[in-house]
Amino acid sequence: MCTCDVEAIMQIQPLSGVPFLSASRAVDLLRFYGVPFCVKGMARCIEEDFSRWSAFEKVPRVASHSASGVIELMPISDGEQYSFKYVNGHPKNEQYGLPTVMAFGVLADVQTGMPSFVSELTLTTALRTAATSALVARYLARSDSQSMALIGNGAQSEFQALAFYALLGVRTFRLFDVDTQATEKLAAHLMAEDLEVVLCQSVAEAVRGVDVVTTITADKTKATILTPDMIEPGMHINAVGGDCPGKTELHPEVLRRARVFVEFEPQTRMEGDIQQLPPDFPVSELWQLFTGVVAGRTHSAQITVFDSVGFALEDFSALRYMWKIANEEKALDALCLIPILTDPKNLYGLLQQKP
Amino acid sequence: MCTCDVEAIMQIQPLSGVPFLSASRAVDLLRFYGVPFCVKGMARCIEEDFSRWSAFEKVPRVASHSASGVIELMPISDGEQYSFKYVNGHPKNEQYGLPTVMAFGVLADVQTGMPSFVSELTLTTALRTAATSALVARYLARSDSQSMALIGNGAQSEFQALAFYALLGVRTFRLFDVDTQATEKLAAHLMAEDLEVVLCQSVAEAVRGVDVVTTITADKTKATILTPDMIEPGMHINAVGGDCPGKTELHPEVLRRARVFVEFEPQTRMEGDIQQLPPDFPVSELWQLFTGVVAGRTHSAQITVFDSVGFALEDFSALRYMWKIANEEKALDALCLIPILTDPKNLYGLLQQKP
Repeated sequence: MCTCDVEAIMQIQPLSGVPFLSASRAVDLLRFYGVPFCVKGMARCIEEDFSRWSAFEKVPRVASHSASGVIELMPISDGEQYSFKYVNGHPKNEQYGLPTVMAFGVLADVQTGMPSFVSELTLTTALRTAATSALVARYLARSDSQSMALIGNGAQSEFQALAFYALLGVRTFRLFDVDTQATEKLAAHLMAEDLEVVLCQSVAEAVRGVDVVTTITADKTKATILTPDMIEPGMHINAVGGDCPGKTELHPEVLRRARVFVEFEPQTRMEGDIQQLPPDFPVSELWQLFTGVVAGRTHSAQITVFDSVGFALEDFSALRYMWKIANEEKALDALCLIPILTDPKNLYGLLQQKP
Repeated sequence: MCTCDVEAIMQIQPLSGVPFLSASRAVDLLRFYGVPFCVKGMARCIEEDFSRWSAFEKVPRVASHSASGVIELMPISDGEQYSFKYVNGHPKNEQYGLPTVMAFGVLADVQTGMPSFVSELTLTTALRTAATSALVARYLARSDSQSMALIGNGAQSEFQALAFYALLGVRTFRLFDVDTQATEKLAAHLMAEDLEVVLCQSVAEAVRGVDVVTTITADKTKATILTPDMIEPGMHINAVGGDCPGKTELHPEVLRRARVFVEFEPQTRMEGDIQQLPPDFPVSELWQLFTGVVAGRTHSAQITVFDSVGFALEDFSALRYMWKIANEEKALDALCLIPILTDPKNLYGLLQQKP
C-alpha cells in the first residue's frame, strides 16, 4: 500500500513557510533509503493513482520550444490536490556543465490554492520515470525476464537499470551509447551493485537476445534507434527517449508489429513515438492495464511497447511519495514563498509593520 | 528606461543555488523603496515589454477550476528568457486566514532551461496589476484626472490607489466595499499617505463625478458592479476583478458604450468582462496603445475601459524588475532547487559521493 497521507500533507500549516525538499536533502534521502526501495514505493503510488484515472483533470503539458530545447509545465489535479512540474529538455546542456533534464515541482491544496510542498524534481524525475517504466514492464515484459538492453547511458540510465532490478529481478544489462564514457560510467555503477554488465559496440549487438529493450537517448531529432530487424519475438520495448514533437527513437514498423501502451493518449499522439503513425493507430492507456480493462502480455512471443513520454500524473504521485519520505525523515525545510498575513485582506499592512 | 539587465541575470551562475526572493525579503524591499517608486519602475518594464509584443511566444494561461476557486499557470518566453507564474484565486480564503490571491514565479534561461530566479509573487502581483492599471490609465484617462472610485477594498486596493497617485497624480479616492471593515482599513492606509478619502455607502455614490472607476472585487460570479446609469462622459473604467470564465463586473452595455482595451485578446475573450459580448466585439490590445498603432483617448467625453485580467507578460516584466532591485539590494538568497553536478551525465554519482 502506498500510504501517502493526503490529510497529513494538508495539516502542515504554512506558519513558518511552505515545506520544501531541496536537491541536497533529496540526495540525502535517496542515499538513506537507496534507489531500489524508493523506486518500489514510488511505483506503488503511480499504480494507485493511475488506477483512479477518472478522478484526475488531465491536460497535455504546456511546452515552450526553442532551437536548443524545450521548457514544459505539467499540471494535474484530483480535486483535492493540485500539482505541477517545471521541466526542461536540452540535449546540448552538457557543454554548459548542466544536466539535460532539470525539474522542480509543487503540490497545492485545491480548496485554498495554497502550495503545500515545493520539491526538487531533477533526481525525482529520474526515479519516477524509471519507476513507471519498470511498473509497466511488470505487466508487459515476460515474467521470466532476466536481461535488458540499455540504449542511451546518460543521467537517467542507472535509475532505469535499478528499477528493473528492483521490480522485475533483471540482473543482466547490455549497454550501448555513442558516448563510450557515459557507458563506462554506467557500467561501473551497475557493477558496484553486483549487476552483470555487457558493453556493446552497437545497438544491434546490445539488443540481441534480450528480454527488454530500454531506449533512453537525448537527441531532439527523428532518430531511428531501433529498426524492425533488431526486434525478436517476446521482446518488451521501453521507449523513454522519444518524448516531444520531432523527437522519436523507434522505426514506425517496430510500433506496427507491437501492442503499444501510452500514459495519456492525447499527449502521446503529439509527443511519443506514435507521432509517426496515423491518429487511429490503436494504443491502450496505462490505467487500462493497471485496472485490468486491457490485458497485459497475452503470450510469450508477443512484442510490446511502452511509448513513454512522461505524464503529469507520474509527478503528482512522485511528489506525494517524496513528501511522505521527506516528512518521515524530517528532511523538509520551510520556504518563505507566501507572505503570512494576520488579516488576509490587509496585504498592504505587511509594509506598514515595523521590521 | 527600464534597466533590467538580461545579461546580468544570466551571469548569475547557480553554483550555490538559484537566486531566490522570499516573501519576507520582498516586504523588506518594498518598505525600503516604497510602493510608488516600485510601481513606477515596474510600469516602465511593462511598457517596454509590451512594446516588443511580437518578440513573445504567447499562450492563454492554463487554468484548473474547482468549486472553491482557480489555480493557474502563466508561461511566456521571448526566446532568451522564459517565465511562468503560479497563481490562485479563491474568493473564500478569508475563512482560512489566507489571501484570495497567492503567487510565486520563476525566470529561466531559454538556452539551457536553467531557472535563473525564483520569487514570491503575492506582493509582486498586487504591484504589477496596479502598475499595469495606472500605466494604461495614462493613455486612456483624462490627463487632468484627480479622483478615482475604488469598488472593492481588499488586499490589492491600496496598491491600485498608490499606483494612480504615483503615475497620474490622482489624490482623491471614493471607496466602497460590501465589507465596511475592508473600507476602513483602506481608508486608514490612504490617509496615512496624505491622500483624500471619501467613504461611500453604495457603488453609485462612489462613482458619482469621478474621473476613473476601478473595480477590483473578488466574487467568482457574474456580478454587475457597474450599470450603464452610473457611467458619465469622460470616465475611464479600470475593470480588474472580472478575470475568469463566469466572473465579471460590468454590465455589457457599459462595454458597448466604451472603447475597450485588453492585454491579450484570446485570453480576455475567455476571461474578461467581454466574455459577455459576441466574439467580434471590437477591442484593442495594450501593445497597440503603447506603440501608437491605436490612439489612446481622443476626446474628453469618451468612455474608455481597460478590461484587465492579468497576462503572463506582466509577470515576466515584474520578475525582471524584482530581480533587478533585489540584486541591487543584495536581497537574494540561494535556493538549492537543482542539483549541481560535476559531470552532468552522472546524476546517479550524486548518490555515491560520501556525504
